[in-house]
Amino acid sequence: MTVILSEAEALEVIKAGKLGRLGCIDKNEPYVVPINYMLVEGSIYSHSLPGTKIDAMRLNPRVCLQVDEIDDEFHWRSAIVFGNYEEIQPPKDRREVLRNLLYHFPKLTPVESVMAHDAAAPDSIVFRIVVNRISGVEER
Amino acid sequence: MTVILSEAEALEVIKAGKLGRLGCIDKNEPYVVPINYMLVEGSIYSHSLPGTKIDAMRLNPRVCLQVDEIDDEFHWRSAIVFGNYEEIQPPKDRREVLRNLLYHFPKLTPVESVMAHDAAAPDSIVFRIVVNRISGVEER
Repeated sequence: MTVILSEAEALEVIKAGKLGRLGCIDKNEPYVVPINYMLVEGSIYSHSLPGTKIDAMRLNPRVCLQVDEIDDEFHWRSAIVFGNYEEIQPPKDRREVLRNLLYHFPKLTPVESVMAHDAAAPDSIVFRIVVNRISGVEER
Repeated sequence: MTVILSEAEALEVIKAGKLGRLGCIDKNEPYVVPINYMLVEGSIYSHSLPGTKIDAMRLNPRVCLQVDEIDDEFHWRSAIVFGNYEEIQPPKDRREVLRNLLYHFPKLTPVESVMAHDAAAPDSIVFRIVVNRISGVEER
């Protein structure tokens, strides 16, 4: 039986997750990639090297993040948040986000560990999704 | 190290998978949902009850399916196919696809088992994504 999750229940799925699928629009086509993320004060934080998703989100900042917990075809939950892409620019803020990501993902690459200490390094883009809508469903 | 997969390698990821994340565009926003699928002769086949994703794909048939194999943050592959949404309408074709899905997903719900035998049942939408582009990346 499929059940609509409350916003609070959907938020629990997002909070509990670390890996989600980011959806954005690239040249009028949907584009989906897996990302690691953390949720802090209503925003999704992550980072990325330059590439298709960053180019797409810079042009069209409306994005979503889908997170699921799947036991089997009959027992799963999926939540999705919608929001706007924002790049974190100030070195101090980049450093804080990267340190926080390092804490959540201790196995980040050496490059990223260095970045957390030298946040002026421009290679990685640090960004957040300012969430303004959330929904979810559960099959149980 | 992130490596671009060849089309053949990306196709292997899609072939090996059963669960993917469908991306579509809903009212100018990206929308992502997990789906079970099978790949047959260059098309992704799946089914769904009516709802947001079906409404969205009927209005804008350009969609993608992202599939990944994730061991950890340093060892993963992700592939994505892009294509056009098409509904399977003729009862004979619906029946064939549903039987094939039942074979791939033996735990489909009783409703769907019944549908495979009575493909005229209109509740579930049977559809395919006719793939015309594929790409993928690997972290290793």
